Amino acid sequence: MRPDMGAAPVFDEDFRARLEELIVWRRDVRRFRTDPLPAGAVERLLGLACLAPSVGLSEPWRFVLVESDDKRRLVAANFEDANAEALSSYSGERASLYASLKLEGIREAPVQLAAFAEPDPEKGRTVGRRTMPETVAYSVVAAMHTMWLAARAEGIGMGWVSILDPVRVARDLDVPPHWQFIGYFCIGYPLEEASSPELERVDWERRTDPATVVVRR
Amino acid sequence: MRPDMGAAPVFDEDFRARLEELIVWRRDVRRFRTDPLPAGAVERLLGLACLAPSVGLSEPWRFVLVESDDKRRLVAANFEDANAEALSSYSGERASLYASLKLEGIREAPVQLAAFAEPDPEKGRTVGRRTMPETVAYSVVAAMHTMWLAARAEGIGMGWVSILDPVRVARDLDVPPHWQFIGYFCIGYPLEEASSPELERVDWERRTDPATVVVRR
Repeated sequence: MRPDMGAAPVFDEDFRARLEELIVWRRDVRRFRTDPLPAGAVERLLGLACLAPSVGLSEPWRFVLVESDDKRRLVAANFEDANAEALSSYSGERASLYASLKLEGIREAPVQLAAFAEPDPEKGRTVGRRTMPETVAYSVVAAMHTMWLAARAEGIGMGWVSILDPVRVARDLDVPPHWQFIGYFCIGYPLEEASSPELERVDWERRTDPATVVVRR
Repeated sequence: MRPDMGAAPVFDEDFRARLEELIVWRRDVRRFRTDPLPAGAVERLLGLACLAPSVGLSEPWRFVLVESDDKRRLVAANFEDANAEALSSYSGERASLYASLKLEGIREAPVQLAAFAEPDPEKGRTVGRRTMPETVAYSVVAAMHTMWLAARAEGIGMGWVSILDPVRVARDLDVPPHWQFIGYFCIGYPLEEASSPELERVDWERRTDPATVVVRR
């Protein structure tokens, strides 16, 4: 348990404006510098990740720091196979555009992290997840998104790689076979910054007006 | 597309310390004041939610603002049934403790929001989700967690209710039957603030040292 933090903080207009900037400038980064992060940075960010909401305080997140060249090569090969199959589903100009996309930074990112969920954690004693067991996986997503924002605030970029066979990732990384793979994260200093998604900048997809996805009942 | 935000921001030590406070003091709120939020607050927060990462820029989030008493009563009844069944799974002291937990604020929260995923969105053209279609749901979780942090920065609390039959929620709210229910969120000003989870304060569960959930490969 963290020590008591004292009186509840009040966040002012200036902080909120900066937080909005952080949310706007968070990116899925695929182009990394290869220089390492400062000592302790990843552990500090993982500590913040573990402050994310988890269903019933079950804290189902399990993290694998993928450090060895051998393991990274296995993940890269997994990506290449899955990405080749994805490419084969497009044709014409769309296939050419897909082939030009850079969708991961597995060969360059100095830190690489696989996130898993323990699907049936003892912690939490099942509170909140009897009708919706998928909330266990959702808790790990909340942890990763917490880390993502905290990393960006330090100028550190993250990219989520999901073009992977999830069963093969678990097997290649020698984790307990019942762990559920959530995502593979490339982490490091980005080569560039942007306030809009790369998929928008290369004309793959465009953002929608949020008002169009809200209904009232 | 948002207008270009100009030069990339640099976040300083002070901002990062405040961001850590925000992450520490974000809570799953179940005790709400009943007074309304300022006009436009929910729409502004939903706008920030839609800046969350989504797989392939698919933006699969669909939001239902649940405003009518009738619909809120249906959700409350759904919760009561699911919670009674959950209670029956415990016995002895643990059952008494469970029965004493306040796990939602459906009767008090001035704003209530159901979040769904469009499971097979046209947007994004399947990028990133062929091997892991669950990343569509994960995108909605990232949106809700973005909203959660942004809300807390305005002093607005959110609570995630998952003790619900998800199929019944979709039916009761008259949404397209293929939408996937992600979570029901109670939103409003909290009656109290705390730097530790309520489930920890009432001795239901304790947080774990993050170092124990990290392995290296």
